Amino acid sequence: MVNETKKIYDAIVIGGGPAGVSAAVYIASRGYNPIILEKNEIGGTIGKVSSVTHYLSVDNYETGESFKEKLEKQLKVYNIEVLKQEVLNLDTENLLKKVITKSGEVYFTRVIVLANGTTPRKLGALGENELVGKGICSNPWKEGKNYVGKNIFVVGGADGAIKEAIYLAQFAKELSIIHFEEVLGTIAEFKNKLEKLENVKLYLHSRLTKINGKDEIESIEITDEKTKNKKEIECKGAGIFVYAGAIPNTENYKNIDLENGYIKTDSKMKTNIEGVFAAGDICSKDIRQVATAVSDGTIAGINASNYLKTI
Amino acid sequence: MVNETKKIYDAIVIGGGPAGVSAAVYIASRGYNPIILEKNEIGGTIGKVSSVTHYLSVDNYETGESFKEKLEKQLKVYNIEVLKQEVLNLDTENLLKKVITKSGEVYFTRVIVLANGTTPRKLGALGENELVGKGICSNPWKEGKNYVGKNIFVVGGADGAIKEAIYLAQFAKELSIIHFEEVLGTIAEFKNKLEKLENVKLYLHSRLTKINGKDEIESIEITDEKTKNKKEIECKGAGIFVYAGAIPNTENYKNIDLENGYIKTDSKMKTNIEGVFAAGDICSKDIRQVATAVSDGTIAGINASNYLKTI
Repeated sequence: MVNETKKIYDAIVIGGGPAGVSAAVYIASRGYNPIILEKNEIGGTIGKVSSVTHYLSVDNYETGESFKEKLEKQLKVYNIEVLKQEVLNLDTENLLKKVITKSGEVYFTRVIVLANGTTPRKLGALGENELVGKGICSNPWKEGKNYVGKNIFVVGGADGAIKEAIYLAQFAKELSIIHFEEVLGTIAEFKNKLEKLENVKLYLHSRLTKINGKDEIESIEITDEKTKNKKEIECKGAGIFVYAGAIPNTENYKNIDLENGYIKTDSKMKTNIEGVFAAGDICSKDIRQVATAVSDGTIAGINASNYLKTI
Repeated sequence: MVNETKKIYDAIVIGGGPAGVSAAVYIASRGYNPIILEKNEIGGTIGKVSSVTHYLSVDNYETGESFKEKLEKQLKVYNIEVLKQEVLNLDTENLLKKVITKSGEVYFTRVIVLANGTTPRKLGALGENELVGKGICSNPWKEGKNYVGKNIFVVGGADGAIKEAIYLAQFAKELSIIHFEEVLGTIAEFKNKLEKLENVKLYLHSRLTKINGKDEIESIEITDEKTKNKKEIECKGAGIFVYAGAIPNTENYKNIDLENGYIKTDSKMKTNIEGVFAAGDICSKDIRQVATAVSDGTIAGINASNYLKTI
């Protein structure tokens, strides 16, 4: 039985980060009707950072929060609807495709853009899951100020980790960076800023292996990668921010060709399935920056619109 | 004889548009010392538009001018020097490369990023060169208001032309679009806005073939592509804005591999010459938007920095 009242969208963009918003804006500007399905909030990963750096046109005062507000405004200009939905499955067998969500909704669409990025990788430390929201944090801009005068730990040594460590140091009694490699893997700009701070401590070749506490963090255990020695640190009421890499959110895309878990696209951001495009951090590529996500979204949006013209 | 006092830059970026500025910002953030050589002004082509549209994070009030100011601020944050120089030649034979300018300066550098975009194509209309600055305009935002109550002509039918036609219509007695094709080749967003305007006239399958006047425009001649009929239009004091495509500024890059006049790059924005990268509109590619230029610059900047690490 065909449900005659079903609404058909021109395009469904999954994910409301820089890539997804760009794709949706371009599709709308071409006269088509896209919606965005986003399980959390507009802005994606970058919406949660303390500062947006390097992306062309941002100033020194651009936070993830202010950047996110700009994206929301841009979506309003183009009347692009955002629905809070987590996608469970795609049915791409026919020209008219279906997007099935966790809540049981089925959306019909002619084009799909997969732009739902990545999820932060967990450490696998004991106590990590239990203390989420009780010391284990994910948004430095919003949560950092809850740890004034406390110990703050940043786990990770890449740019994202060090940028947030620099920001969080202003609140912390002591800001400790725990990184499993011998040296930090960050750019000169952040390294120079970090070196100027006086309350920063480095735990290199080290892993955070245990977090103790109930309603708040009481102590942590750090394991030295070389000696395998374990060290317990008392840190009542500490905040921990983990930047241990990311996992592409591709587990529900059964028919999409992947490469190391990321979506394979061509130069037009097309996947292996006709009418299905991908953009941003979810794609297999070398450089993951806001700028490259926005470019992916732009290219996906324009080519998705060109495809819509042909069907 | 070696001049021991010569200054060697880590990187010379040629061109100060979105691609060049992005590349320079990324190179500086990696701890290297880039300069930008720009023959005109920071901002490039986009610095002259009446509004910057679609680029992620811009609002409805972003003009080419305000966008340009943001780039200038970003360059200041990273202390990136911009020199007003027109590049005449490259010497890329050795590891230490030379950039030779029209004024006779020789700059030494370890990396070059070619990001000097394109130049607007001329129509080849009689009187076109003579009336530059006397009615033939290139910056709608700055020059549009000089033509209040006058006839304004926009030549071209693609997005750039129609966006400016919409902006310029507010000043014009009558805004005429002259386009050689049968239909306008613009996106729905601009087509819809254009249709709502009441003082717009279309000359399709037509070319602007002659511009008469001395200190200002007196009349123009339009030739119908189909009938070859010529029509003279009296338009004392008119303004003409030409968007007839663009030519890549690659004529001085003798050893760089081109494709239809544009620079061939790989996915790392490397050219055929080691240590020479390219970014933005000057590159061979499908989609020329601010977003793709910024992404090119980002990728070129990061890979140029990685290259600098190795030499």
